[in-house]
Amino acid sequence: MNNKKPLIALIMAGGKGERFWPKSRENLPKQFISLVGEGSMLQQTVARIDQLLPFERIFVITGKRYQDLVAQQLPKLPLENIILEPTGMDTAPCIGLGVSKIKKLFNNCNIVILPADHVIQDVEKFLQTIRFSDDFLNNGHEGILTIGIEPDRPETGYGYIKVEDHPCENEIYRVRRFVEKPDSNLAETYISEGNYFWNSGIFITDANYILKRIDEFLPELGSILKKIDSAMGTTQEESVLAEQYKNCPRISIDYGVMQREEKIFMIKSSFIWDDVGNWNSVGEYLKNENSNRILGEALLRDSHNNIVFNEGKAVLVGLGIEDLVIVNTADAILIAKKDRVQEIKKITEQLKVEHEELL
Amino acid sequence: MNNKKPLIALIMAGGKGERFWPKSRENLPKQFISLVGEGSMLQQTVARIDQLLPFERIFVITGKRYQDLVAQQLPKLPLENIILEPTGMDTAPCIGLGVSKIKKLFNNCNIVILPADHVIQDVEKFLQTIRFSDDFLNNGHEGILTIGIEPDRPETGYGYIKVEDHPCENEIYRVRRFVEKPDSNLAETYISEGNYFWNSGIFITDANYILKRIDEFLPELGSILKKIDSAMGTTQEESVLAEQYKNCPRISIDYGVMQREEKIFMIKSSFIWDDVGNWNSVGEYLKNENSNRILGEALLRDSHNNIVFNEGKAVLVGLGIEDLVIVNTADAILIAKKDRVQEIKKITEQLKVEHEELL
Repeated sequence: MNNKKPLIALIMAGGKGERFWPKSRENLPKQFISLVGEGSMLQQTVARIDQLLPFERIFVITGKRYQDLVAQQLPKLPLENIILEPTGMDTAPCIGLGVSKIKKLFNNCNIVILPADHVIQDVEKFLQTIRFSDDFLNNGHEGILTIGIEPDRPETGYGYIKVEDHPCENEIYRVRRFVEKPDSNLAETYISEGNYFWNSGIFITDANYILKRIDEFLPELGSILKKIDSAMGTTQEESVLAEQYKNCPRISIDYGVMQREEKIFMIKSSFIWDDVGNWNSVGEYLKNENSNRILGEALLRDSHNNIVFNEGKAVLVGLGIEDLVIVNTADAILIAKKDRVQEIKKITEQLKVEHEELL
Repeated sequence: MNNKKPLIALIMAGGKGERFWPKSRENLPKQFISLVGEGSMLQQTVARIDQLLPFERIFVITGKRYQDLVAQQLPKLPLENIILEPTGMDTAPCIGLGVSKIKKLFNNCNIVILPADHVIQDVEKFLQTIRFSDDFLNNGHEGILTIGIEPDRPETGYGYIKVEDHPCENEIYRVRRFVEKPDSNLAETYISEGNYFWNSGIFITDANYILKRIDEFLPELGSILKKIDSAMGTTQEESVLAEQYKNCPRISIDYGVMQREEKIFMIKSSFIWDDVGNWNSVGEYLKNENSNRILGEALLRDSHNNIVFNEGKAVLVGLGIEDLVIVNTADAILIAKKDRVQEIKKITEQLKVEHEELL
């Protein structure tokens, strides 16, 4: 008897991705746009994982309003594999709902849970890491296994995972603690200490195990998920979901579960990973022309360290400009100083009043 | 017998106006675009002078390629009042040709010669200055009368006229000398000395007098103009013009005539005058919003001292930007540091190679 459980992918594609305005919009968040490489972030995420899993075992969880978009972008994905949140929630409810839904079809399975909006390069290494993790769980280890990336610089934009000094098996370590995005001094310390890794936000666990843990650490959420679960497959499913889901506590899986979990492991990997948090991160992947990073038509003269993302029809000409992020789309042009890109969200709040059509 | 000669206006509209790219183009130079106020610079120039003169006495001299543009922009102007240069020349040949043409229709007249691309406000004061100048010439004074503007700041972007300490009549002075655009120290000196005025480039003279002077100071040009003049009104006119005009010396009226002329006067005036030499000058006339100068749709956050000229459909959003000139048109976006706008010409040279369609 082959007791290997099936591996399922659950891709979280419900984010708002406001930091990429004007390329991202309310009805077209980051995961649905193309920022780096060919295809949307979601399409690229699926293209990576479908080298390992058939489409029947790939699920996408997203907001109801994005259902059509996911279906359009992923024509090979069975429609029933799009799991819909009635309203946007944080990751604990989202994962709780997604896993509950998957468990109805695959009672006993491991699930790799992936954000839809990350850049991953060196796909073979990435897939191998998932295979190893799946094997680890299938070899009698209970718990949650996160993927940690070997840092190549003291990055302040990512959270870190601190692990034990010695692995418990091959590249797999017990996690000592999760740490928030550090300042640059702290980041330097992490790098020199050596047992700190970037938290990729990707993790693998048994479906029943994670639901049990949610129920234990977040009993309010657990009780709501049980009500939703009971209605699944009945005529009441939609109404119960709509009624119950909105009452979920808005808490992330990191705070709600990972940081309280004792059986928590990290698998070390070194594929190129980036959560591409803002326009500056996107710049890293664009064509380098005399220190400027350029996508689309741009002619820069005596201009340095700018990021130009030009998708509009107009040719962009720069003269003597420095350290700017310039994004041109069909109906909006953003020109921001590089060190201010984290404030783009404030801009969209202002647009809500003056130019709602541009959101 | 009324011996008052008619007054004629000759508007010079042949400039290339490359410094206003991307708003100005090779086939749409500065004088034909709207930069400040309603209508093109040329239309505004004509709208001012037609309060004083009927259209029959207004002439526009321009390059052959702009004939249709002038006719479109000035539907009330008789077609025969558009004087065409076969090729673009400097101001001495241009004025020589224009005055020769006018003299065929109005043998004995005064001519006010005006650039088509200046901003003038306080039109009543402007017209009064022209009336006074015309009267001065009609009252037995021979010579050339330029209009000088009382400076309100030590501007380094204009040429200056130095006059005698005392007027020879009302606001009219003999000119001592013309001086080039000064550096800022020199400009300060001019302002404190007090008998320096901005050279508006507008002047009034008798038609026969200026032709005589051209012939005297620039005999080569004079001889070409005589050949052209002989052919005027004959079937040979166009071919002689085409053949002869291209041989004219390329020299400005300032160098060629004004600076050598002894019977040269200046009438002092104080209307608001600006030759609007670059985008920074245009900024002065745009709506001031928290230190930014804005035309069109723009939303600037924590941004200061920028000039935004947005004629495109896209809304422009700025975040943390300073001292930029941003011009958005249907097919090109310029983003230039303010102190680099004089280099826009170099950009257009580069575009000649890479994007000729944008010139």
